[in-house]
Amino acid sequence: MNRFDGVLAPVITPFTKDLLPDGERLTAHCQWLVNQGVGLAVFGTNSEANSLSIDEKLVLLDELVTAGIDPDLMMPGTGCCALSDTVRLTAHAVTLGSRGTLMLPPFYYKDVPEDGLFAFYSEVIQRVAEESLRIYLYHIPAVSQIPISLRLIERLAKTYPSIIAGIKDSSGDWSNTQALNELAIDDFRVFCGAETFLLQNMQSGGAGCISATVNVYPSPIKDLYENWQAEDAEQKQDHLNEIRQIFQRFPMIPSLKTATSIYSGDSSWLRVRPPLLSLTDDQQTSLKDQLESAGFEMPGL
Amino acid sequence: MNRFDGVLAPVITPFTKDLLPDGERLTAHCQWLVNQGVGLAVFGTNSEANSLSIDEKLVLLDELVTAGIDPDLMMPGTGCCALSDTVRLTAHAVTLGSRGTLMLPPFYYKDVPEDGLFAFYSEVIQRVAEESLRIYLYHIPAVSQIPISLRLIERLAKTYPSIIAGIKDSSGDWSNTQALNELAIDDFRVFCGAETFLLQNMQSGGAGCISATVNVYPSPIKDLYENWQAEDAEQKQDHLNEIRQIFQRFPMIPSLKTATSIYSGDSSWLRVRPPLLSLTDDQQTSLKDQLESAGFEMPGL
Repeated sequence: MNRFDGVLAPVITPFTKDLLPDGERLTAHCQWLVNQGVGLAVFGTNSEANSLSIDEKLVLLDELVTAGIDPDLMMPGTGCCALSDTVRLTAHAVTLGSRGTLMLPPFYYKDVPEDGLFAFYSEVIQRVAEESLRIYLYHIPAVSQIPISLRLIERLAKTYPSIIAGIKDSSGDWSNTQALNELAIDDFRVFCGAETFLLQNMQSGGAGCISATVNVYPSPIKDLYENWQAEDAEQKQDHLNEIRQIFQRFPMIPSLKTATSIYSGDSSWLRVRPPLLSLTDDQQTSLKDQLESAGFEMPGL
Repeated sequence: MNRFDGVLAPVITPFTKDLLPDGERLTAHCQWLVNQGVGLAVFGTNSEANSLSIDEKLVLLDELVTAGIDPDLMMPGTGCCALSDTVRLTAHAVTLGSRGTLMLPPFYYKDVPEDGLFAFYSEVIQRVAEESLRIYLYHIPAVSQIPISLRLIERLAKTYPSIIAGIKDSSGDWSNTQALNELAIDDFRVFCGAETFLLQNMQSGGAGCISATVNVYPSPIKDLYENWQAEDAEQKQDHLNEIRQIFQRFPMIPSLKTATSIYSGDSSWLRVRPPLLSLTDDQQTSLKDQLESAGFEMPGL
């Protein structure tokens, strides 16, 4: 199975007015993202994945594939706190034909030994027991509080060379992304967790990015990915940074949903599950004004 | 429904050799704890609750009640990251007749607004929609990374006075436990999260403790709870502290399981689910020696 490269969105998850996952709107948003040329990291942090039950995620995956979303474009997040949950969700994603899975470490217990994390990933791999399993590790220490060290990655990749396929680095620390690109692991795919580092990552031999704002600005981010060696690459990077900074002035997940609501005309996109909160009316207006001033658009949404 | 007081164990969870939850051994351990006079906070942090799936927890609850464990003695942990999971598990615990539930805040997303946590607990209460629901909030900021502030507690208790019944304070910060005991909330039950604070908590009007080491030393801890006004209470507290300090020299959960294995002669108790690891042979020997020197025992196990 070919490993991923390129640009993927940690796809935002719409909710019905009862706060149930809305498979129909999710499918439509995935279809729009695919049309813009990006891949689908459904059930990422920005998907409110950890505010969904395993059963809700299994049903959504089935709905997406049944609706015709190509599993070869999908890298579902499948890492949960419980070994049993991670195995169940990962096995289902593999059975549906997902080209890869993005796997958080178990994140409730803190200060766990590196041997314990190795044992967790090993148990998952052995219990899923599918040759086509491809794991992209998910390093997001500010949220998970469980860092994935270079040493752990090397050990996992050495033990499971065909399965450990890459990493999403959401540390926000360029020196870590750089170190990942320098690991002596064959064909290891390094994705930065924000497009802010996309040009640097491509220059360092990285594979692309998996970033919140790909949900709302897929085509320009994909454009930089495809043309990172062109003369105007730095200008493109500067423009992406400008847009991202606007979103970062607000809580990220509700601001992505607000932009999607504004540009689709569908206010149901404003909903989030607690403990997150929707943007206030004032925040929504402010986000809208800033995006318009920056020439932001979501064509075809 | 009467609110809890006294001493409860966050009951350790045994696993089969395939690392599946072992309902039979769990029932036996619960029965032993009940015989020692303590209550059952199954699915706490020390239960490896967050290494279990919701389905695994639902099955274990059913097994315990079917086996005759009195739900009036049970305060299952039911707080998960996902609203849907928390509602499902809480509703099941209430249906089975649990006298209370111990509820973590959703713990994946960090730096969430207090209004978002209020909305989470409110949604749970409204969706469970059972008059007999009693929630004991679970404040364990070092692990959950989501503190439950005094202001949030006051707001929840004011809005849901019959449902918000108390709190387990695992902050390890006595000044916080003291402040909780001084809240102007009618019949609010404050449990310290370690018996180290049991005497102080009782002197300050607290309700008791819910502590890791109740799993292995229930009767002496219950004895201090019952006799905290006796002349020798400080000596008893000192002895409990000495025993606890031994356990704290090792990772807590595997050391509780090791003691249970040693004193029951059942080595299956040594098993933990990754990312936790069992104690090494050397650690097991060292724990055993230290416990013996301190006159520790687990009679009737």
